[in-house]
Amino acid sequence: RDSIRAFLAHPYFQRFIVGVILINAATLGLETVPAVVESYGTLLTVVDHVALYIFAAELAGKLYVERTAFARDPWNIFDTVIVAIAFASTNGGLSVLRSLRILRVLRLLSVVPSLRRVVSALLRAMPGMSSIVVLLSLVLYVAAVMATKLYGETAPDRFGSLPDSLFTLYQTMTGDDWGNIAREVMTRHPTAWIFFASFILVCTFVVLNLFLAVVVSAMDE
Amino acid sequence: RDSIRAFLAHPYFQRFIVGVILINAATLGLETVPAVVESYGTLLTVVDHVALYIFAAELAGKLYVERTAFARDPWNIFDTVIVAIAFASTNGGLSVLRSLRILRVLRLLSVVPSLRRVVSALLRAMPGMSSIVVLLSLVLYVAAVMATKLYGETAPDRFGSLPDSLFTLYQTMTGDDWGNIAREVMTRHPTAWIFFASFILVCTFVVLNLFLAVVVSAMDE
Amino acid sequence: RDSIRAFLAHPYFQRFIVGVILINAATLGLETVPAVVESYGTLLTVVDHVALYIFAAELAGKLYVERTAFARDPWNIFDTVIVAIAFASTNGGLSVLRSLRILRVLRLLSVVPSLRRVVSALLRAMPGMSSIVVLLSLVLYVAAVMATKLYGETAPDRFGSLPDSLFTLYQTMTGDDWGNIAREVMTRHPTAWIFFASFILVCTFVVLNLFLAVVVSAMDE
Amino acid sequence: RDSIRAFLAHPYFQRFIVGVILINAATLGLETVPAVVESYGTLLTVVDHVALYIFAAELAGKLYVERTAFARDPWNIFDTVIVAIAFASTNGGLSVLRSLRILRVLRLLSVVPSLRRVVSALLRAMPGMSSIVVLLSLVLYVAAVMATKLYGETAPDRFGSLPDSLFTLYQTMTGDDWGNIAREVMTRHPTAWIFFASFILVCTFVVLNLFLAVVVSAMDE
Ligand code: NA
Ligand code: NA
Repeated sequence: RDSIRAFLAHPYFQRFIVGVILINAATLGLETVPAVVESYGTLLTVVDHVALYIFAAELAGKLYVERTAFARDPWNIFDTVIVAIAFASTNGGLSVLRSLRILRVLRLLSVVPSLRRVVSALLRAMPGMSSIVVLLSLVLYVAAVMATKLYGETAPDRFGSLPDSLFTLYQTMTGDDWGNIAREVMTRHPTAWIFFASFILVCTFVVLNLFLAVVVSAMDE
Repeated sequence: RDSIRAFLAHPYFQRFIVGVILINAATLGLETVPAVVESYGTLLTVVDHVALYIFAAELAGKLYVERTAFARDPWNIFDTVIVAIAFASTNGGLSVLRSLRILRVLRLLSVVPSLRRVVSALLRAMPGMSSIVVLLSLVLYVAAVMATKLYGETAPDRFGSLPDSLFTLYQTMTGDDWGNIAREVMTRHPTAWIFFASFILVCTFVVLNLFLAVVVSAMDE
Repeated sequence: RDSIRAFLAHPYFQRFIVGVILINAATLGLETVPAVVESYGTLLTVVDHVALYIFAAELAGKLYVERTAFARDPWNIFDTVIVAIAFASTNGGLSVLRSLRILRVLRLLSVVPSLRRVVSALLRAMPGMSSIVVLLSLVLYVAAVMATKLYGETAPDRFGSLPDSLFTLYQTMTGDDWGNIAREVMTRHPTAWIFFASFILVCTFVVLNLFLAVVVSAMDE
Repeated sequence: RDSIRAFLAHPYFQRFIVGVILINAATLGLETVPAVVESYGTLLTVVDHVALYIFAAELAGKLYVERTAFARDPWNIFDTVIVAIAFASTNGGLSVLRSLRILRVLRLLSVVPSLRRVVSALLRAMPGMSSIVVLLSLVLYVAAVMATKLYGETAPDRFGSLPDSLFTLYQTMTGDDWGNIAREVMTRHPTAWIFFASFILVCTFVVLNLFLAVVVSAMDE
C-alpha cells in the first residue's frame, strides 16, 4: 500500500494525470467538429475510453490506499462523482447525458493545486452570502408572482406563466434588454415603470450589499 | 400573558409560522396556473384564508403581550403593515390590489433570524448612501429636462415628455440599449454623443463613489 | 457688511434659497409640458426670472461681503458660472442654449451641505484615477484607429470614420449590444472576434484596476 | 556615452519624445479621413517616417548607453517590440499589418512616468488573478462543448461550432443580449434556462471572487 501511495502522490504521476485530462479535453472538443469525427472518430473514442479507465484506476488506487479516510476528503467525493458521471454519460444513449461527458475535465479542479485553492476559497465565501441569495430569491419569487398576475395577459410571452416571469425577471436583474420589455408592458399598463424601476433598484441594492458582505468578511480573515 | 409570550417565542411556534408562510407562498404561486385554479381553486382559497387568520392571530397575541412596547419595535410595524395589506388585498376586487397578496410572503424577513439580520444591515447602510442617491436623482432630473427640450421632437417615443425622458435615461444609466437610443437621436442631432457620453460618464463616476462610500463606511465598523 | 454677512449665512436664508431652487426646478420641469405652458406660460416665465434675480442678488451680496476672498472659494466660482450660464440661456434664442437653463438647479450642490460634502469627496477622488482615465482613453483611441482601418469598409455605419469607431467602441466598453456589432463585422472578417474579445478584456481589466486604485486610496485616508 | 545618457534622460528630451508620439498619434488619426489623405497624404507619410526614425534613434542611443543592462529592463524590451512592429507595419502591404502602425502610440506607456506606474501596478496584480482566469476559461470551455452538443442543431448561428459557442458564451458572460439567445434556444429545448441561469450564476460568482482576490491582495500591500 505504501508504494501505491507514493506512486499516486508522485509529482510525475500528478503531471501525467493533468496531461491525460488536457488530452481528453482536446478530444472532447474535437468531437464537436463533424469532419474530424468522420476521419478520426474511432481514435477519439479510444482516447476517451483510455482516459476514463485511467481516472477510474487512479480513484480505485486512492480508495485502496486511504480506505475509510477516503470518504472524509470532500475532493475524493468530488472525483468519485465526476468519474461516475463520466461512466454514466459514456454508455448513455441520450444526447443530454452524452453532453455531460465534458464534465470530467473539471477533474482539473481537484488535481491542480492552485485551482484547488481557488475553489476552496470560493466555497468558503459561500456561507457568508447564503442569506443574501435567499433574500434575492425571495424578491425574485414575489416579483414574479405579481408580474404574472398583472402583466400575464398583456405580454404572455414574457409574463404568461410563473416560470416565464421568473426567467424575464432574472434577465431584468442582469440588466439585459429590460427597457424594451418594460416598454412593451407599458403600452397597456402605463404605470408598469414603477414595478420595473423598483425591482431594479431593490435588486441592485441587495446585490451591492451581497458584494459588500463578501468584501468585509474577506477583510476579517 | 406570560404563557402566551412563551408560546409565541417558542422555537416550534416560530417554525410553524415559517411553515405557514412557505405553504401560503406555494399556494399563491399555484394560483398563477389556470389548470390548478380550476381543479383546486377552493382549496387554495381556504389555505389562503387560514394562513391570513393565523398571521392576524399571531399579531394580536403579540400586541396583547407587549402592549405599549409593541409599537416601538419597527419589525412589529412591518408585520402590521404586511397583514393590513394582506387583508385589504384579499377582499379587494381590483387586480392590482389582488396582486399585492403575495407581499405577505415578505413576512419571512421578520420571522427568519438570518434574513432579519441581513435586512437590518441593508437598512443601516442606507443613510450613508442617501446623499449620493439625491445627487444621482438630481443628475437624472437635470438630464431629463435637457433631453426633453433638445430631443423631444426628434425621438418622441424616447424623449417626448419628461416621464419618457426619465425612463429612457434611467435605462441608459443601467447601460441597457443606450447605443441604439443615442444613434437614433444622432441621425438628427450629430452632437448628441456629447450628451450621452457625458451622462454615462457622470453616472458611472457617481455610482462608483456611491459604492466606495458604502465599502469605506462598512470598513469603519 | 456684517449684517449682510449674517443675513446671507442665516439658516432661514439658506432654506429660502433651497426653496427657490426647488420651485425653479419644478417650473423648468413644467415647461416641458405643452398644455401647462399654454395656460400658465407667463407665470412660469415670471417665476423663472424672479428666481434668477434672487440668485444674482445673493451672489452680489456674497461678493460685496467677501471681496477679494470671494474668488478663492471654488464654490463661489461654481455659483458664478452657474448664474452666468443662467443669464446667457434665458436671453438666448437658440434651443441648445435655452436647454441649459435647467443647469441652474445644480446650485443645490453648493447650497445643501451634505451634497457639497459628497461632491467634494468625488472631486478629491479624481486625481487618483486620472492616470487610469488617460490609459483608458489611449486604449480607446488606438483601438478606434485600428477598427476604422480594418472594418471601416465592412461596417461603415459602425466604423466608417474615427468618430464613429470611437462611439462604437465606447458603447462596446459599456457592454451594450457588442455581440451583434461583432457578429456583423465577423461575417466579412472571421477573425474580428480576436479584436473584440481583446478590447473587452483589456478594458475590463483596466476598469477593474481603476476601481481598485480608488478603493485602496480611500482606505489610506 | 555619459553625455548621450544625460541627453536621453534630460526632461526636455523626454518631453520632446512625448510630443513626437502625440503628433504621430494625430497624423495616424488623420490618415483615417480620406479628404485629409488626398490633400496632405505626403506630409502625413513624412511625419510618420520622421517619427519612426526618431524612435529608432532613441532606442539605438539607449542600447549604446546601457549595453548588456539594456535587455534586463522589461520596458526596453517593450519599446523594442513596439519599434519593430512599427517598422514591419510601415513597409507591410497587408491592411491588417498596416493597421498595427497605431500601436506605436503605446510607447506613451513607457515614456510618461505616471502611465508607467499604472501599467506596472496592473501587471503586478496579474499573478494574483491568473488562477481565477484559468478557472473562468475552464468553465467557458466546458460550457461551450456542452452547448455545441446540445444546441448546435437548434441554433446553428449561435452554437453551430465550438468557436461559435465560445463567442456566444463569452457574450453571455458579459450579460449582452443573453435573454434573446436563451429564448431562441428555449423554443426547442424548454429546459435550456437551467443551462443559461447556471452558467451566468457560476460566472458572476467566479468574477465576484476574482475581484475580491484582487482587492484583498491589494490591501495586504
Ligand atoms: Na446590456
Ligand atoms: Na442589450
